[in-house]
Amino acid sequence: MSDSHEQLIDQLGQAARGAARVLAASAEAQRNHALRSAADAVRRSSETILAANADDLAAGEARGLSAAMLDRLRLNEDRLEAIAAGLEAIAELPDPVGRVLAEWTRPNGLRIRRVAVPIGVIGVIYESRPNVTADAAGLCVKSGNAVILRGGSEAVHSNRAIHAALVEGLSEAGLPPDTVQFVPTQDRAAVGALLAAHRWLDMVVPRGGKSLVARVQADARVPVLAHLDGNNHLYIHSAAAAAMAVEVAVNAKMRRPGICGALETLLIDRTRLDLVPALADALVERGCQLRADEALLALDARFKPADESDWATEYLEAILALKAVDGPEEALAHIARYGSGHTDGIITEDQKVAEDFLARLDSAIAVHNASTQFADGGEFGFGAEIGIATGRLHARGPVGVEQLTTFQYRVFGSGQTRP
Amino acid sequence: MSDSHEQLIDQLGQAARGAARVLAASAEAQRNHALRSAADAVRRSSETILAANADDLAAGEARGLSAAMLDRLRLNEDRLEAIAAGLEAIAELPDPVGRVLAEWTRPNGLRIRRVAVPIGVIGVIYESRPNVTADAAGLCVKSGNAVILRGGSEAVHSNRAIHAALVEGLSEAGLPPDTVQFVPTQDRAAVGALLAAHRWLDMVVPRGGKSLVARVQADARVPVLAHLDGNNHLYIHSAAAAAMAVEVAVNAKMRRPGICGALETLLIDRTRLDLVPALADALVERGCQLRADEALLALDARFKPADESDWATEYLEAILALKAVDGPEEALAHIARYGSGHTDGIITEDQKVAEDFLARLDSAIAVHNASTQFADGGEFGFGAEIGIATGRLHARGPVGVEQLTTFQYRVFGSGQTRP
Repeated sequence: MSDSHEQLIDQLGQAARGAARVLAASAEAQRNHALRSAADAVRRSSETILAANADDLAAGEARGLSAAMLDRLRLNEDRLEAIAAGLEAIAELPDPVGRVLAEWTRPNGLRIRRVAVPIGVIGVIYESRPNVTADAAGLCVKSGNAVILRGGSEAVHSNRAIHAALVEGLSEAGLPPDTVQFVPTQDRAAVGALLAAHRWLDMVVPRGGKSLVARVQADARVPVLAHLDGNNHLYIHSAAAAAMAVEVAVNAKMRRPGICGALETLLIDRTRLDLVPALADALVERGCQLRADEALLALDARFKPADESDWATEYLEAILALKAVDGPEEALAHIARYGSGHTDGIITEDQKVAEDFLARLDSAIAVHNASTQFADGGEFGFGAEIGIATGRLHARGPVGVEQLTTFQYRVFGSGQTRP
Repeated sequence: MSDSHEQLIDQLGQAARGAARVLAASAEAQRNHALRSAADAVRRSSETILAANADDLAAGEARGLSAAMLDRLRLNEDRLEAIAAGLEAIAELPDPVGRVLAEWTRPNGLRIRRVAVPIGVIGVIYESRPNVTADAAGLCVKSGNAVILRGGSEAVHSNRAIHAALVEGLSEAGLPPDTVQFVPTQDRAAVGALLAAHRWLDMVVPRGGKSLVARVQADARVPVLAHLDGNNHLYIHSAAAAAMAVEVAVNAKMRRPGICGALETLLIDRTRLDLVPALADALVERGCQLRADEALLALDARFKPADESDWATEYLEAILALKAVDGPEEALAHIARYGSGHTDGIITEDQKVAEDFLARLDSAIAVHNASTQFADGGEFGFGAEIGIATGRLHARGPVGVEQLTTFQYRVFGSGQTRP
């Protein structure tokens, strides 16, 4: 990494730190005003933003980006309106800053209050979707944080145009424009300098594919709120209701097979192989390929054999691994060995078995009798999320505005000294 | 780092991961039983432990350790009894595992419960005090975590003897002996391997001086719960009560000048220079040296001039920097520039000024009309602490057993699928 990148990040970081102090002391109404004004600016600037996006799309086509990549990159009037409406929806959320999380009084009369405060300066490193520029910045502003954005090079013109609208919103609300900053160079070494900037960055959030997250985790000298695999499991227990088991498993896999909350391995209790035909029919009908262990393979000619690597794979497509297990213990052992700690669960009518199973899962989200696809900030009632955290500290599961705060102890005395 | 160290840490880590799963599913009574049995084992083994300690002391004297170092290393009957009683006190604390932190029901009927669960495997890297072996392990066991301990080489015999007593306690309670492990080599490269073991370690806690913490922060590939500087401030506001201001400031500096919660810079409002003689008399009488800015220097012949470096220094001894400021804004700006975000506060009778000042401090602990020396887990009512965290995420301030837990979402449905 060159000195010039360090200098650049120092400049951005110092400005962000200053802005973060202003944001932390700002009123809720002012932050919401900034978000609503930014939404207006996005709408006002739609021509400029779409023209910038057209530049990105042309460059992407010239570089031979795949159709899927180009679709992720593409903006249109509807998508722009969704970006603006998203900012307004964030403004509507309750203020996450200043919540009293706990309060108690000590025998010596000291009153101790634990209060939610902004984290400070957050770095967001993302790939080709330009809407992340607005979503991530909106969540950070709402929660009183400054943010340094680094988007993918293929979306650079779109991101800059959206960033300009966000800055307009901040200015209209009297908040520092430096609250939301954009790394102005596409040089990848700038990312290295950003990840090393522990003096300026309090946390970094990578939003993108596995290689991006892996690089950020390897290089970061600041805490990372990372999203790793969602190799998710459901276990159909002996006391599962048949229709529910089929319905929930099919939804968990096939509603949207490509999201991180999608089911990847279905564990079926050996006492419930009666469910296999209905499960297989429903999944195959929806276009799902099925890979089964030896015990199940004989039951259906449509099953392909699963091997060791299938248990460890997050397919993110219409493929499901199936395995027969002898009771909850074997199911838990399989999940402990192959799971990624994202979202796992059980289908059973036995409440006691369910409570025990959930408590013994080492997963951020443990579900009973419901689809794993509920692993989502909106579905949790968080309003909007910057991602799903798969680490164990600070935040686990959906990361909404509350998870973008930390806390401070405020201790109120009347002259107490420590003996 | 050599392969053999990686292999060693892999072995310890894998064993710890297995033990952590058992601990996470263990009953509170079993964990408390282990702690009380360990206390008994420490008492029963006192001869063995003191003999091991004598070996460490002899080796330390031969290596020319300072008297202060030797004192930190020394055990005797009283100190051993304190270690045993400390384990029993941890057993008495409320169970931090399984607390329902929040619970709500979604419009679709999903009931979402946020429950405290153990973090998993914690590494503790510490220096010469052998009591940390028992304290840190006790807090980890109580909170359902496995722990890998790495103590200072100068205390290796003492630590091993205490570790043996802890393992006895675990075995008597039917918990895995691998719950508390001790890195069996003194080779420093083993620490590097431990800090890189993100597969096995969920968090590392360095307990020791600045160089230890800095090394751990630089090398760790796992989250660090670090304790950095406590460059703490009090601001005496224009509306401060005179006697309280003097009493609190003197206690904050001189009760124990060497602890991380000790006051390092006193900011005095320019309207309250009338307090300077009483402050100076009380501090000098207790043996404190005073270093003052230009405005104050003229007021007392005992003041030495402070320079820029004094504002940034955590003295940890009987020296206090003094500075006159023009109101809360200048005090906040000084603290923002030089403070370390540990513990800072204000002395004032004006409640509104105090609330505003505390809210604008970027400190883990913000105090009003009380000594900064209350920055302590025991004083917060946490019972015992593994340290004070100065980072911004997961835990800030005193780290007790609650802070050694994370959380899991448990989602209870009745067959819900996501539309």
